[in-house]
Amino acid sequence: MNYQKILDQIKEEVLPLSGKGKVADYIPALAKIPSDKFGIAITTLDGKTIKVGDAEEPFSIQSISKVFTFAMAFKLMGEKLWNRVGVEPSGNPFNSLVQLEHENGIPRNPFINAGALVITDFLLTSSFNPKKSILDFIRKISSNENINFNFDIAKSEKEHGYRNYALANFMKSYNNIFSDPEELLDVYFHHCSLEMSCVDLSKSILFLANHGVIPSSKEKVLSKSQAKRTNSLMMTCGMYDASGDFAFRVGIPGKSGVGGGIVAVIPGELSICVWSPELDKFGNSLKGVKALELFTTITGMSVF
Amino acid sequence: MNYQKILDQIKEEVLPLSGKGKVADYIPALAKIPSDKFGIAITTLDGKTIKVGDAEEPFSIQSISKVFTFAMAFKLMGEKLWNRVGVEPSGNPFNSLVQLEHENGIPRNPFINAGALVITDFLLTSSFNPKKSILDFIRKISSNENINFNFDIAKSEKEHGYRNYALANFMKSYNNIFSDPEELLDVYFHHCSLEMSCVDLSKSILFLANHGVIPSSKEKVLSKSQAKRTNSLMMTCGMYDASGDFAFRVGIPGKSGVGGGIVAVIPGELSICVWSPELDKFGNSLKGVKALELFTTITGMSVF
Amino acid sequence: MNYQKILDQIKEEVLPLSGKGKVADYIPALAKIPSDKFGIAITTLDGKTIKVGDAEEPFSIQSISKVFTFAMAFKLMGEKLWNRVGVEPSGNPFNSLVQLEHENGIPRNPFINAGALVITDFLLTSSFNPKKSILDFIRKISSNENINFNFDIAKSEKEHGYRNYALANFMKSYNNIFSDPEELLDVYFHHCSLEMSCVDLSKSILFLANHGVIPSSKEKVLSKSQAKRTNSLMMTCGMYDASGDFAFRVGIPGKSGVGGGIVAVIPGELSICVWSPELDKFGNSLKGVKALELFTTITGMSVF
Amino acid sequence: MNYQKILDQIKEEVLPLSGKGKVADYIPALAKIPSDKFGIAITTLDGKTIKVGDAEEPFSIQSISKVFTFAMAFKLMGEKLWNRVGVEPSGNPFNSLVQLEHENGIPRNPFINAGALVITDFLLTSSFNPKKSILDFIRKISSNENINFNFDIAKSEKEHGYRNYALANFMKSYNNIFSDPEELLDVYFHHCSLEMSCVDLSKSILFLANHGVIPSSKEKVLSKSQAKRTNSLMMTCGMYDASGDFAFRVGIPGKSGVGGGIVAVIPGELSICVWSPELDKFGNSLKGVKALELFTTITGMSVF
Repeated sequence: MNYQKILDQIKEEVLPLSGKGKVADYIPALAKIPSDKFGIAITTLDGKTIKVGDAEEPFSIQSISKVFTFAMAFKLMGEKLWNRVGVEPSGNPFNSLVQLEHENGIPRNPFINAGALVITDFLLTSSFNPKKSILDFIRKISSNENINFNFDIAKSEKEHGYRNYALANFMKSYNNIFSDPEELLDVYFHHCSLEMSCVDLSKSILFLANHGVIPSSKEKVLSKSQAKRTNSLMMTCGMYDASGDFAFRVGIPGKSGVGGGIVAVIPGELSICVWSPELDKFGNSLKGVKALELFTTITGMSVF
Repeated sequence: MNYQKILDQIKEEVLPLSGKGKVADYIPALAKIPSDKFGIAITTLDGKTIKVGDAEEPFSIQSISKVFTFAMAFKLMGEKLWNRVGVEPSGNPFNSLVQLEHENGIPRNPFINAGALVITDFLLTSSFNPKKSILDFIRKISSNENINFNFDIAKSEKEHGYRNYALANFMKSYNNIFSDPEELLDVYFHHCSLEMSCVDLSKSILFLANHGVIPSSKEKVLSKSQAKRTNSLMMTCGMYDASGDFAFRVGIPGKSGVGGGIVAVIPGELSICVWSPELDKFGNSLKGVKALELFTTITGMSVF
Repeated sequence: MNYQKILDQIKEEVLPLSGKGKVADYIPALAKIPSDKFGIAITTLDGKTIKVGDAEEPFSIQSISKVFTFAMAFKLMGEKLWNRVGVEPSGNPFNSLVQLEHENGIPRNPFINAGALVITDFLLTSSFNPKKSILDFIRKISSNENINFNFDIAKSEKEHGYRNYALANFMKSYNNIFSDPEELLDVYFHHCSLEMSCVDLSKSILFLANHGVIPSSKEKVLSKSQAKRTNSLMMTCGMYDASGDFAFRVGIPGKSGVGGGIVAVIPGELSICVWSPELDKFGNSLKGVKALELFTTITGMSVF
Repeated sequence: MNYQKILDQIKEEVLPLSGKGKVADYIPALAKIPSDKFGIAITTLDGKTIKVGDAEEPFSIQSISKVFTFAMAFKLMGEKLWNRVGVEPSGNPFNSLVQLEHENGIPRNPFINAGALVITDFLLTSSFNPKKSILDFIRKISSNENINFNFDIAKSEKEHGYRNYALANFMKSYNNIFSDPEELLDVYFHHCSLEMSCVDLSKSILFLANHGVIPSSKEKVLSKSQAKRTNSLMMTCGMYDASGDFAFRVGIPGKSGVGGGIVAVIPGELSICVWSPELDKFGNSLKGVKALELFTTITGMSVF
């Protein structure tokens, strides 16, 4: 398949969507990103990377980092994770807190904020230097030693992150957070602030298209069963409250971030990352979702 | 792959789960089914059917019928459906009514009761004899002219179906039900009362593993895109409030009914139906879910 | 106190509110009432009635009827009522159904629709002719043999009352409705359709200002304790979701209806009824609430 | 009326309730209070105090302090308060956070924790030394210079107060908290830790039975209208999720605390305080509620 031609075509086709979404503006550092940035990178199991547009420019990965911290915690804790976080879609944003209250402080899944905080809490209680552990892990799976936090963004998030403080304290009142909320949020905001390019992200996520194994190094990040389960979680819970719609229209497991990035995998084939900062009303990249829909339609590559 | 051997092995392995679930007892006709019934049938794209246990004994398909009525309505109305029903998981049972209230009478998806009532409403408003249309459709896709409603069960459901009456009237107050609630519920309870065997069901669902086309007759039930979308809906919403868990453990699209049946498909490969009346706390067949988990684990055939 | 002068003054002062509310329009019969109707009637314990404006013109009492059916059921059943309905404010409209679901079909209080349906259910199961019993009771306490249902309004309500059908069926699914929903709704819509004037209503409610006894006839409608409890229920639950605001601004027990009427009592002193069809966003008469606020402010007669 | 005899009788009558409730145990300092403590104090408008049992022993007033901080803020800000907090009952505990979320961070009323935090926030933003201001106010209205915080209890609350931290941060995310959450909680936990006796409390609340004026000093704490409104808020929102039940059974405005105290007023007559540490399932003093029910029944003094 001529992926380069397909990516070029997609870039062309999504162009008219410019101006129909809204760049995240809850912190200044995100608000200033030019809204017309657009890039895609694909990495195939045999190690080839195909790209288009701004695919090598680093951006704020935000919630995409939840896949990485989840993979780290899953590897560490195995199925014990599920005592403290669920695997079900969350319904809708409006329910997040009432669900936590109704379900005794156990978040619905690892990809909503509450769940990602529990995952980060696992990393805090099992590492002397969780920020360094996270950085090491990301650098390894993306083969890029230059990846780093954006400390300004982490600081800015912290100054506006009252809702996340509320979640952490609320779960702590149910004894489902063990570390100090202040320290927890510090690590959380840092991993959300990581800056990576589409190329970095497509490489870093490739193990999920390959039964948990990084193809180039043969290193096993997750077991086959764990990789499958991570993919199913991305499928049912990866796109905030539009996960059903993404499964419906795109048909592959994916995870988005408010920085405008979306990573996705086609098991047995390839990994892909799109970046475009304008978001739809659910907080997912507007052009990004459309680009992935075009990709699975053109290639016929959905999992269904 | 030696499917017969695999099915025999699975039958053996799930046996110890006997007595750990609970047969549906909200109507007498379901309560009297022997709890130890167990059957599996597989139908492959090339038309072979492999079976084990009570795979040829008809049982009450209940909510599995929602896949069939949905396919009928999807074929008829296309994407216009989505004005009146969504494609997102529903969160949890507790939310069903509050979500309807919060979302102006638009059900979350076609596989929760409220959504299935809207789908049935489409069939009522587009057919002179909706019960006959449904029967004709099911008989055709299963190649079994003997399939029929169980009129006693339909009557019994009607006498205990106050919650479904509540849902229909509630949506009608939002103008999202056009037909008379009484007539609507009559059709609804009838299609839920259909009796089919595992063999019937695996055959009838095969088109969803084959891009919408019945392999034997080459008849196109749904377009390729529609079939893919139906599968994604089963994946995210097919197993009541354990859809995430089913995706997580089993990893293929499926739909269950309180009669103890579960249908599922592995796109490009086969369709499968399991039947065992003991249910878990979510209303899904306890042995059925386990059997399907074993099947995808043994064959390595998940979509992820 | 010169009540006539006070009522004249209040009529003057609320005039500028004309056009700021909205006449109920969910059924044609209510929508056609002239929006500028306004009346007040006071009846004192010694039997004097003072009135202003359209105080003798009958209007649709709607939810005010819930006080009467409640009083009938309370007299009949005593404290046994509380097994099937609560005495707490309901929070907000949005919660009505989720609360019913969460609390196993037990409505929060007798003055929300769900609770009033349970109360009407008591009357159905304890009277051969509940509609006649209700009519007899109202005619007696108001000393007006001409009071009657408005059959057109009852019919119209029935045709638009899907949400009430939903509530009745939903509670029946929890075994908290014993009669047939169809018959229950018929009685319910009839008692809501009663037509009475401000003078009728102030007379009929006077027993609640007099420890349960009708002053003129000395007939005991409720015990002293029951009368006190009815007043406390009106205080905490009588004004839909603005009960707190009414207690706060007006400070006496009252009950409103979407026909624009509000009845209220000042224990030991008098009963009062205001009518003005324009409603505020909570469904309470806009001028009516203001008139009662002025009345308690001018007379200094709040219970606090 | 022979209040002394009535109090003696009540003390006798509630004795059999011993052991039917549960002393608050979420912090050690409260858990160690002997469960059989019991006291009542009445203060009449003419300045007489009648007491029984442990009425002079100081206890932790907890949420009763919300009435005092509310009165302070109401005096300071007047009706401007209502831009940031409502006057409606909250429905039930389960809803607290979803309501905050649904209503943009505006708490339902000043007597639930979220609302009391907003009230405390007013005090922080209008006083250089809010803890001292609170102490000065309480000492003045109770005529007792020895009243003080219990610093151990304040510290202990802080160590277990994650849910209150969650509430404060959550409201701050809606811009409805202006001060620093850490400082806010410090003041909040301190005013909840105040220790007062039944005698102190009945004296301190007397102005609410006297149109806002302290009878002995003639000092006007609140205007007549403000006092009436404070009483109506206690009536509809003062007893957590049993406010309706308290209005129903007791029929006077009151406010409880988990330390086992309840204050209440009979406007124009007297103020009363009961203390008994065993709580019912709503967190209100079990004997305390019963004692007040007996008091209004025996004296016939309800507001209705």
